[in-house]
Amino acid sequence: MKITILTLFKDLIEDYFNHSIIAKAKARGVFEVEVIDIRDYSLDKHRHVDDAPYGGGAGMLLSIEPIDRALKACRSDDSYVLLTSPKAKPFSQEDAQRLAKKKHIIIICGHYEGTDARIEDYVDERVSLGDYILSGGELASLVISDAMIRLLSDAINPDSLKEESYDDSRLEYPQYTKPAVYDGKKVPDVLLSGHHANIARWRKKMSLLDTYIYRKDLFDKKPLTIEEKILLEEALKEK
Amino acid sequence: MKITILTLFKDLIEDYFNHSIIAKAKARGVFEVEVIDIRDYSLDKHRHVDDAPYGGGAGMLLSIEPIDRALKACRSDDSYVLLTSPKAKPFSQEDAQRLAKKKHIIIICGHYEGTDARIEDYVDERVSLGDYILSGGELASLVISDAMIRLLSDAINPDSLKEESYDDSRLEYPQYTKPAVYDGKKVPDVLLSGHHANIARWRKKMSLLDTYIYRKDLFDKKPLTIEEKILLEEALKEK
Repeated sequence: MKITILTLFKDLIEDYFNHSIIAKAKARGVFEVEVIDIRDYSLDKHRHVDDAPYGGGAGMLLSIEPIDRALKACRSDDSYVLLTSPKAKPFSQEDAQRLAKKKHIIIICGHYEGTDARIEDYVDERVSLGDYILSGGELASLVISDAMIRLLSDAINPDSLKEESYDDSRLEYPQYTKPAVYDGKKVPDVLLSGHHANIARWRKKMSLLDTYIYRKDLFDKKPLTIEEKILLEEALKEK
Repeated sequence: MKITILTLFKDLIEDYFNHSIIAKAKARGVFEVEVIDIRDYSLDKHRHVDDAPYGGGAGMLLSIEPIDRALKACRSDDSYVLLTSPKAKPFSQEDAQRLAKKKHIIIICGHYEGTDARIEDYVDERVSLGDYILSGGELASLVISDAMIRLLSDAINPDSLKEESYDDSRLEYPQYTKPAVYDGKKVPDVLLSGHHANIARWRKKMSLLDTYIYRKDLFDKKPLTIEEKILLEEALKEK
């Protein structure tokens, strides 16, 4: 997969992709990244890319022309163009899975004060991280890239696959590592028992309990089975 | 406000805070940032901070001891400790507003393979960016920081305040800048009319229309007023 990011903050994006956290996957060929500075496509001699909004109002808007020109330089028939924008349903793991299958994802980082609305005609999809306002689309483009790259890395390295949060609309069970007692807090006995069936049952129970406590809404997405209902009731009684 | 970030990827976090996008707010004294490498608090001579999970399973978990020791080094009575984790309600603009009022926010970046569950007793709140899986908590810590810093910057620079998405559960109206015609696409006539009342009415209508198209769920959060209902019906008819 190739990811192209169109931004006004090229250094910020490039620095991120050079960090060890992500550079390994890049080195393994999991993905390829290209970062384009929208200013390089300004026709203005001062490299301006924004202007005041028609009809008045505070702030400067990113103009359509440099974006269109930058897109023309990097887009092909395999490209799928995303725009980070609050005008979208919040990004989800299903979106990450769907987008990770594309050959070429182009992400346009939305401008913090807004972008000329005609950009709508140049993009395939808008993406929003969630219901909060960020100072620009740069972090959003990195988050979306990370969610896709993680899936691609796992696809290449099946060993790294494990039970994960959200994959089945249930939160992950709590995990513990050494020491067995820390600051007076003990690891649950069952995990030290070596009894695999009991451990598996306890983990399932705790996964349901945590989902109940933190994200009850996930039960709407995927209703409880009869077995899960029994386990959750047991967990709630024991609590 | 002071933000302290506990991470295994100190360079990544520091690089971000040194970029122009955020460095201006730092230079203006809007916030102060401190980045702590959890490995500096490992008692292990190889600076290990993770270990295998009790009860078996793939992956390595971040141990509780180095986190507790790092927290002891930076926590005071004014501190409020966040942990990035999928076990939380998705972060929202209300959370950003609430957290931006704290004197000292400590963000612990969750480990990509999990953290010892006893960490629960050491944090005030868990935060999740949304229903998607990231390779680590680093980007989440930056997103949360950015959402808070943006609010603090606006509070200091009231000139920069403007109508914004989500602040009132309605999406922002579409905006346009020069040229008036680009690639055959025209800016709506009303915006070129200079008629302020008509422009304001059109913007309100378009804001409702975009909310209806992209985020109808926001109408559940804040129901339509009678005036809004009339405007939205008009917009839908014209569409």
